[in-house]
Amino acid sequence: MNRYEQGIERFKEIKGNGADKSIERLKSLHPDLEKLIMEFAFNDIYGRPELNMRSREIATVAALAAMGHTAQLKVHIQSALNVGVTKVEIVEIILQMALYAGFPAAINAMQAAREVFDEIEANKINTSGGGISPESKKLASL
Amino acid sequence: MNRYEQGIERFKEIKGNGADKSIERLKSLHPDLEKLIMEFAFNDIYGRPELNMRSREIATVAALAAMGHTAQLKVHIQSALNVGVTKVEIVEIILQMALYAGFPAAINAMQAAREVFDEIEANKINTSGGGISPESKKLASL
Amino acid sequence: MNRYEQGIERFKEIKGNGADKSIERLKSLHPDLEKLIMEFAFNDIYGRPELNMRSREIATVAALAAMGHTAQLKVHIQSALNVGVTKVEIVEIILQMALYAGFPAAINAMQAAREVFDEIEANKINTSGGGISPESKKLASL
Amino acid sequence: MNRYEQGIERFKEIKGNGADKSIERLKSLHPDLEKLIMEFAFNDIYGRPELNMRSREIATVAALAAMGHTAQLKVHIQSALNVGVTKVEIVEIILQMALYAGFPAAINAMQAAREVFDEIEANKINTSGGGISPESKKLASL
Amino acid sequence: MNRYEQGIERFKEIKGNGADKSIERLKSLHPDLEKLIMEFAFNDIYGRPELNMRSREIATVAALAAMGHTAQLKVHIQSALNVGVTKVEIVEIILQMALYAGFPAAINAMQAAREVFDEIEANKINTSGGGISPESKKLASL
Amino acid sequence: MNRYEQGIERFKEIKGNGADKSIERLKSLHPDLEKLIMEFAFNDIYGRPELNMRSREIATVAALAAMGHTAQLKVHIQSALNVGVTKVEIVEIILQMALYAGFPAAINAMQAAREVFDEIEANKINTSGGGISPESKKLASL
Repeated sequence: MNRYEQGIERFKEIKGNGADKSIERLKSLHPDLEKLIMEFAFNDIYGRPELNMRSREIATVAALAAMGHTAQLKVHIQSALNVGVTKVEIVEIILQMALYAGFPAAINAMQAAREVFDEIEANKINTSGGGISPESKKLASL
Repeated sequence: MNRYEQGIERFKEIKGNGADKSIERLKSLHPDLEKLIMEFAFNDIYGRPELNMRSREIATVAALAAMGHTAQLKVHIQSALNVGVTKVEIVEIILQMALYAGFPAAINAMQAAREVFDEIEANKINTSGGGISPESKKLASL
Repeated sequence: MNRYEQGIERFKEIKGNGADKSIERLKSLHPDLEKLIMEFAFNDIYGRPELNMRSREIATVAALAAMGHTAQLKVHIQSALNVGVTKVEIVEIILQMALYAGFPAAINAMQAAREVFDEIEANKINTSGGGISPESKKLASL
Repeated sequence: MNRYEQGIERFKEIKGNGADKSIERLKSLHPDLEKLIMEFAFNDIYGRPELNMRSREIATVAALAAMGHTAQLKVHIQSALNVGVTKVEIVEIILQMALYAGFPAAINAMQAAREVFDEIEANKINTSGGGISPESKKLASL
Repeated sequence: MNRYEQGIERFKEIKGNGADKSIERLKSLHPDLEKLIMEFAFNDIYGRPELNMRSREIATVAALAAMGHTAQLKVHIQSALNVGVTKVEIVEIILQMALYAGFPAAINAMQAAREVFDEIEANKINTSGGGISPESKKLASL
Repeated sequence: MNRYEQGIERFKEIKGNGADKSIERLKSLHPDLEKLIMEFAFNDIYGRPELNMRSREIATVAALAAMGHTAQLKVHIQSALNVGVTKVEIVEIILQMALYAGFPAAINAMQAAREVFDEIEANKINTSGGGISPESKKLASL
């Protein structure tokens, strides 16, 4: 596999279900942008074995929250959940960012997290016939 | 213990040897600044049990590198080492920030990491009589 | 009263009518975020007697305009009006930010101010039967 | 002509068709904001002969993309096209910003460019009876 | 007086003793930069009567602290003192910025304030024969 | 040649005399950082033929000035001069950044430019026996 193919494979592992849609959206912005991201970000950097995916996503969620990149933050909150970071931990990373980037950044990031969590719940309810599972009850009281 | 005392205790756990010097420096800037940081940052936030210290420091190193706060970054690279993040992992977090904050931010952060790593080595050599330990050789080839 | 209760009380003084809605919105994002903001921001910091509320809100409007946090800026433009800063002064603070943060930041902040001013006018017209008061005429020519 | 009139004239040269609408929008935010921008930005700075308009717009597109000011970026992507920067060059400036400001900034800027390019195409199709011109085909494969 | 001369006059009023040195420094960077700052910043903006100098400097200190422009922050802390903002109020504005821009920004700004306050004290001692005045004692305990 | 070798070659073309020193400095921070920059920045991005080097350096100088990355800005001011951007144009790009990023960013960037210009002059004088060449006189009055 070349750099692009390996990047795509890793991106799909991290991103899960939404990967194809994300790839199509990047391609529609510009094919070279998508190619450079898959090759450099998801092969050359994320493919380095020196840091596990859980730690990588904690770092990314923190940085995107601090910088105010909410669209990309939502993508990486989903990725963080996929690689084993819990919702409670994501909330905690965002609260901690209030210390380093201020409360407006933390509030905006929490809004992004809330939207991701709500979408996940909505999908669960849709696919499970609407019953509230034990896990979704836990979410409601998060 | 009140909020301030608990904050001080936790700060010393995380920061290790340099804690007293850091506290004195903050006090010299303004006593209330030091008090608010110990109470709010190191008791109210870092004292929350929902995220372990290793994950907290990964998040903090990433955010400070992305935002370009190099003085505070150096402090937290030292703290990250104290709570079990390795030098190799710190390098990796910084390389990853090139993706989210650009290469100048990553270069400046790597410079900060290099300074912290070099200070640690210098201290080791000073206290060990100048011999190069196996670990310092590993650092040199990091 | 404890820190939280004092923070809530001060927040309501500053924020006026919209306080309950703001508190509910923060709680819906995460209860701990709301609690930490009321305790730390509106008790520990805003509760310090060394700076009056007018000066605090001038500082906050300036900083939020410069940093581009438009959602929070709108909240604090309303708070600034509540504690005695005039519309003309808010416009002036924003124009001054063009010097320090550039024109795009000033334009975005002026857009936020315009939206707050327009909402205030709309509410006045709604509650006064639609007649244009002398003050709203003044706004139109601001 | 005074500073304001010269600024307006230059702004119309750079901005083309949308100039009157932009001026009205700025005036509606605040007349003094519009006046200061025309006098200082478009007379005092853009009126300096030491740098041609093509180079000025390359610099502006780069800076706005890096800083994340997407609303103003869209205006200046249109201006850049008006003074002879090509779509391909704008895409390239944005890709280069990934190096200096990170991929989220580049993705957001590419989204802004895509919206400007799509609006131009939509206008062409509307005014040409809907036929796809050779140039719009080229755009589709940009 | 033309725009430049009026700007210079106002700059000297605000800046006090250090004005000539600041003007020379700006000229040495580039004469046109100095001219544009005096004309636009200190005539067109600071010369507007809608906001008093005290409020303007509170806004400027807040924004520069939040944005991390420490060199310019030091200049404006001195200017704020010249137009009647007290040292205690400056400390308070900086503490408040921890809420909006995070603690690293507040720590860096407090360092800048401390340096300005210390320079003022050093000058007093030099010109008064080294005796510690009542006011300097107050500073020491600030 | 592989990506790394091509990146090195292009970097040397752009950077001129100081290239080897820059490469060594990056390697001393971390070898992988240097490798990723040469491969991705100077091969994958700067190697794209869609934008000439003059335009690339105008974009880079503008973005680094706006973002406040002064160390990297100094490197790219030198690179810009190497690929045909004049000192007068660099001054002009920086003045224009006052509009988009504010005067503090422009002042800091002008300081960086002044340092680069002064170093160039110092080197000329050193290598030419100290005589002031016609060109250096022009610089003095820039």
